[in-house]
Amino acid sequence: MNSIQLVQQIESKGSFLCVGLDSDPRLIPSNFNKEPDPIFAFNKAVIDATEKYAVAYKPNIAFYEALGPKGWETLQKTMDYIPKNVFTIADAKRGDIGNTALKYAQTFFEPASSGFNFDSITVAPYMGEDSVSPFLSFEDKWVILLALTSNQGSQDFQMLRDENNVPLYERVMRKAMEWGDAGQLMFVVGATRTDYLAHVRAIAPDHFFLVPGVGAQGGSLADVAKYAMNSKVGLLVNSSRGIIYAGDDIAVSAAREARKIKEEMSMYLDQYWIK
Amino acid sequence: MNSIQLVQQIESKGSFLCVGLDSDPRLIPSNFNKEPDPIFAFNKAVIDATEKYAVAYKPNIAFYEALGPKGWETLQKTMDYIPKNVFTIADAKRGDIGNTALKYAQTFFEPASSGFNFDSITVAPYMGEDSVSPFLSFEDKWVILLALTSNQGSQDFQMLRDENNVPLYERVMRKAMEWGDAGQLMFVVGATRTDYLAHVRAIAPDHFFLVPGVGAQGGSLADVAKYAMNSKVGLLVNSSRGIIYAGDDIAVSAAREARKIKEEMSMYLDQYWIK
Repeated sequence: MNSIQLVQQIESKGSFLCVGLDSDPRLIPSNFNKEPDPIFAFNKAVIDATEKYAVAYKPNIAFYEALGPKGWETLQKTMDYIPKNVFTIADAKRGDIGNTALKYAQTFFEPASSGFNFDSITVAPYMGEDSVSPFLSFEDKWVILLALTSNQGSQDFQMLRDENNVPLYERVMRKAMEWGDAGQLMFVVGATRTDYLAHVRAIAPDHFFLVPGVGAQGGSLADVAKYAMNSKVGLLVNSSRGIIYAGDDIAVSAAREARKIKEEMSMYLDQYWIK
Repeated sequence: MNSIQLVQQIESKGSFLCVGLDSDPRLIPSNFNKEPDPIFAFNKAVIDATEKYAVAYKPNIAFYEALGPKGWETLQKTMDYIPKNVFTIADAKRGDIGNTALKYAQTFFEPASSGFNFDSITVAPYMGEDSVSPFLSFEDKWVILLALTSNQGSQDFQMLRDENNVPLYERVMRKAMEWGDAGQLMFVVGATRTDYLAHVRAIAPDHFFLVPGVGAQGGSLADVAKYAMNSKVGLLVNSSRGIIYAGDDIAVSAAREARKIKEEMSMYLDQYWIK
């Protein structure tokens, strides 16, 4: 999917919500355990309940890997079920070099390889250019690079300042912008760091940000919209647990929570989106 | 496997060789394509040919993922085939937080989860402590953390110096040593950076290093042994392509290349290992 199609979808749905499919056998409502593939049945219910409000789905790959080969089949069925016009993110945080990176890219981008056809994948920057650029050679596919994350450990290295007083996350962003343009590269920017949102937007005025940390982790959607929206909206805000584990009747609970966020987002689009 | 068992194995085999199983359908000898599972048949031949000389095997997870659910079955069969006294490394370079990190750890460490029972996994440090520590809570399991890698892109961020003139890779190592001890934490240190080997050993005198980049990537085994061996040897030196793709008759070619490296390693153990 290219950025024009993504922005069109955001506009038509009045939403920039990404629903995270962190589907855990121990957390899904027990009635799904009757199904032959409980996690797929759960994902299907979540997708049915939220597709009107969500512009992206983000399966958390760890949750499928942990189930062994069967988990990959569940992920495949989930991908096949997601409507084709919705943006898909493989939240895999891969990071390796050269032909290994290419294998990861093929895994998630090339249906002829593993079967998956994700629009994007999250990637870790530590190994540098040759660990990122192999993902950038696929048309209409995106790298979503870790920049400033929402967890406590983001303090350990991402905030380290170099000899010119530039923090590592900013070096990562500026460097990565030499490798890929705003049509193929997004950044992960945690919403719990409201104080940095404007700064991060100034570094990368045109790029999309994938923003976790709203909801369960305490970030403010209003601040994200106010400080980081750009002329192409430039935001995908993720919610996982707050939507998918909101209640046992997914058709009601997940739909209610997704609609609530969507309505707030529509308001902010009216307020802050200057096309 | 604990460090005593690992060192015993190194001593009894006179080798600190790790064989990387970067097994690619397009690169394996064509006679394996007759087999029902070509990659497993190839891995089996490589293991048979090299197990006398290798103390560790390192499947490169990308190569199995790229084959879809069948690839995970191939990886499982390969793991079942590797002799139990040999150290195993999931070269997965995972890096995510909290319960996601725990899922990755379960995937590779807990047979009851995905079926795998790896001794160790490679992990990326960018997200900080809460992306590393979940892997450290498993008994006799190891984190092998990316520190200074052997690729060109290692220059992009790993070498950045902070306001105290300390490079990022050193900050990563010193910080990580607060999270895990030498019995559960190793570092990836590329052999192509001979000039840094003594420095890296001074930072972490007791920890094992997993050293890629010898052979195909041009690193010198002699320098690695000379500058980075410690009282527990402290080295696992990886070779992948130089062994597994050395010829079409794996029983001959892989055995010959592994034995050659092993003999050089035995010499360095005699010369530099001060127990």
